[in-house]
Amino acid sequence: MNDQIKSSAPNRSGGRAARRAARAAPLAAHLRPIRAGMSGGTYNPLSQTDIENIHRTALDALEQIGLADAPESGIRHLTRAGAILGDDGRIRFPRALVEDTIARANRSVTLMGRDPVHDMTLSGTRVHYGTAGAAVHMVDPDGRRYRESTVQDLHDAARIADRLDNIHFLQRPMVCRDIADNMEMDMNTIYACCSGTTKHVGVSFTEPGFVRHGLELLHMIAGGEDKWRERPFVSNSNCFVVPPMKFATESCQVMEEVIRGGMPVLLLSAGMAGATAPSTIAGAIVQAVAECLAGLVYVNAVQPGHPAVFGTWPFGLDLRTGAMTIGSGEQALLTAGCAQMHRFYDLPGGAAAGAADSKLPDMQAGWEQMCSSVMAGLSGLNMVYEAAGMHASLLGFCHESLILSDDLIGQALRCVRGIEVSEDTLALDQIRKVCIGGTGHYLGTEQTLGRMQADHVYPTLGNRMSPKEWDEQGKPDLVANATARKHEILSQRAAARLDPATDARIRARFTIHLPA
Amino acid sequence: MNDQIKSSAPNRSGGRAARRAARAAPLAAHLRPIRAGMSGGTYNPLSQTDIENIHRTALDALEQIGLADAPESGIRHLTRAGAILGDDGRIRFPRALVEDTIARANRSVTLMGRDPVHDMTLSGTRVHYGTAGAAVHMVDPDGRRYRESTVQDLHDAARIADRLDNIHFLQRPMVCRDIADNMEMDMNTIYACCSGTTKHVGVSFTEPGFVRHGLELLHMIAGGEDKWRERPFVSNSNCFVVPPMKFATESCQVMEEVIRGGMPVLLLSAGMAGATAPSTIAGAIVQAVAECLAGLVYVNAVQPGHPAVFGTWPFGLDLRTGAMTIGSGEQALLTAGCAQMHRFYDLPGGAAAGAADSKLPDMQAGWEQMCSSVMAGLSGLNMVYEAAGMHASLLGFCHESLILSDDLIGQALRCVRGIEVSEDTLALDQIRKVCIGGTGHYLGTEQTLGRMQADHVYPTLGNRMSPKEWDEQGKPDLVANATARKHEILSQRAAARLDPATDARIRARFTIHLPA
Repeated sequence: MNDQIKSSAPNRSGGRAARRAARAAPLAAHLRPIRAGMSGGTYNPLSQTDIENIHRTALDALEQIGLADAPESGIRHLTRAGAILGDDGRIRFPRALVEDTIARANRSVTLMGRDPVHDMTLSGTRVHYGTAGAAVHMVDPDGRRYRESTVQDLHDAARIADRLDNIHFLQRPMVCRDIADNMEMDMNTIYACCSGTTKHVGVSFTEPGFVRHGLELLHMIAGGEDKWRERPFVSNSNCFVVPPMKFATESCQVMEEVIRGGMPVLLLSAGMAGATAPSTIAGAIVQAVAECLAGLVYVNAVQPGHPAVFGTWPFGLDLRTGAMTIGSGEQALLTAGCAQMHRFYDLPGGAAAGAADSKLPDMQAGWEQMCSSVMAGLSGLNMVYEAAGMHASLLGFCHESLILSDDLIGQALRCVRGIEVSEDTLALDQIRKVCIGGTGHYLGTEQTLGRMQADHVYPTLGNRMSPKEWDEQGKPDLVANATARKHEILSQRAAARLDPATDARIRARFTIHLPA
Repeated sequence: MNDQIKSSAPNRSGGRAARRAARAAPLAAHLRPIRAGMSGGTYNPLSQTDIENIHRTALDALEQIGLADAPESGIRHLTRAGAILGDDGRIRFPRALVEDTIARANRSVTLMGRDPVHDMTLSGTRVHYGTAGAAVHMVDPDGRRYRESTVQDLHDAARIADRLDNIHFLQRPMVCRDIADNMEMDMNTIYACCSGTTKHVGVSFTEPGFVRHGLELLHMIAGGEDKWRERPFVSNSNCFVVPPMKFATESCQVMEEVIRGGMPVLLLSAGMAGATAPSTIAGAIVQAVAECLAGLVYVNAVQPGHPAVFGTWPFGLDLRTGAMTIGSGEQALLTAGCAQMHRFYDLPGGAAAGAADSKLPDMQAGWEQMCSSVMAGLSGLNMVYEAAGMHASLLGFCHESLILSDDLIGQALRCVRGIEVSEDTLALDQIRKVCIGGTGHYLGTEQTLGRMQADHVYPTLGNRMSPKEWDEQGKPDLVANATARKHEILSQRAAARLDPATDARIRARFTIHLPA
């Protein structure tokens, strides 16, 4: 079929050479077919009644069951706001308090990049994809090998993500296993991420006491506390609950600290459906929504209007084994259902999608990652976390997979962009011209040429060759090409690196494990 | 994290052993979490206005532009129905004729299997996945090699598809390149498919004159013409148009023959967006809808109420090279948009999804296949053609990929099934019991155990092991395991084989290339 089409290509200005030439010209950013913050929302797994039932049940859970284990400071903040401390130590939330909080909360949050070009406005159904997680392994696909992840791996991931158009932010995807001291690990995580990319960075803190050191480091990177507070380019991923329905005491204390430090907060509720959350998709969403609503009350009690991302991240379990699973259809539904709840509340939200159970960047990884990725995008999820490089049910991170996800997410974003219907795209006049007295094909029409870049997403490493061409080109291997791209990126000087004076000051103040 | 969860598993009847035992018991068919004919429709890329604009433009195209090249017999049928033959030889369709045809056409078509358990009822948003295509190559993933496809390959594909729960039908996916004579090829295609599976089969005919021989063969397989006409288990894939807006003269004659023979018809319009159809997604859908509406008028003019599948199959092009591309986000949108038009007309419909541009069953193939597969299902497409085994932009078919697609489509079907919201699944009482005076986790609850099979789709070859277990198990390779499964299936006696007496009669009448 390919040959047939090629042979009918017109031999004139509308031909292959002209198309190739047009393709070679770079597109202005606003004309690119896909970009960060495109609006989804065409996929709606829940009916309006479903949504209202989930909302009502979450309010019931907050009012009747409440959350245990708030720290003393949290109890003060929450009861002052109107929550009720029971004799059983659980804090319960009257409906009116929750509803008022939702009504007053931010409808929009901007997560900033160190370079403003990477700022992300979270509102409506605007979609952004990025990394996240706490993988403890690096995946070497060539050797089919898992090994402990290091700070160098993390920095390399940041440098790679910095170069990939469809990775919009870098939340720390893996743990620096080569740094034994937790305080040093937290500081080096910030350094490794921020010196590798100017995109928005997400981190987390092991202990409340580490936050002030982290802020000191961030002030140094920003060039002063005022500059940091003006444009906070790092958010804190805050596992503020231990599902089911318990506050994570220390993590809440971290949250209070980062709020004071001007850092946006990701309110992360990561229940596992069937273990720490109900096994049903609806039940897991109810609990995640209830927990995040409690978190939203908490944040707004500490600091009204503080930027927070509604992080309902329920995960799936393989109930046969009790092991976590992230690559399932159930996971895709969990995440898409949560996105719909975010829209119902009109709150900036995030959840996990695009990760694989597969150990390697193989066909299974491809279908697992795409399934939840594209559904998250179509459902209008503001922040698609874990969307790149994650394997082995979040235990392994892979640089090659990160690189390939740029292509994968590119196609998902094309789907998010959707179908443009207008007199021009309906093309009646074009059909008429081509069919009646015309050439009988559309290859050379003005409309085809004019839209070949603005409408179409072309893969970088994804291969569209015919078998013949593929054979002649030595049968290019997808993963090997990703490895080659990794080496090419890492062989260049990191564009995001800190200026030498700042870097020297940081190294004088903190033990930085990455070589200068 | 996995270890953490495992260690908290309760050591009693609700524990791991009980879950494993529950899992071992086979589920009754009606309790299976996924099955053929589940209803989609939660994904809607087009707004109501978009749909009406596409419909209006398609009617305009039919009324103003019409279709050229109808055979003499077709001109008679169509003009008798109310279409108008212009001086330019084009047949134009008044709006009222098209609207009346839509109103009177079948709202539902049953495509039967040789075994009634495989019958498919196409109506509403009921989704079925299967193979299709005309690949000329077989893909050997182990040798990374393409070679010409043979009748044995086709038969093997049928035998494999027969064993895969999530492959609901077998339309001939590849051409028997080892049979030079077209008549023999057509007969052997029917034989190879029908002797390999009792699921519904789709074929096509090279020339109108071959149809009566094909029907003779089908009568023999069925056990008589009456039995065939009662339960026609083979449909004809009919490329009745050569886009843009031209009837395929010979294929229309084939269509008239198969209608007379009682064979359901797939009205297949396979325009390529940017070559034989407008490059815009909306325009390609307009043209495909217009062409299929013309086909619907044609079928109903020949035989009112004859079962027909509305086969809008627009394909994408890589406009840089003019080569076909099937694995893109644009393709997924083309197909999902068509599915929405089928629903608007309330006509049984089909389109292409789930095929890859990638040459091998690698990560690219996984993401390409899942993207359009899951979107087709969510959009409620009745027949998802090309959904398994297709590579190299439809030029190559791969048995291993077919086997792996059973897992892939299984997850897509889980997404189609969606989120069940009820008092039971919302789980408020369960949350209460677990949190207040309970175990603090859901692993052993009655609801978790009771739903572990009915709610969850478990992969067959997809791997969910932890890195440690995966390592201990010798790092199982996805594609190698698919090859092993292929050999296991093909080493068994085909359950669908014809009875020996019938087989002998067929072999006496036709030149059958497969060994007896």
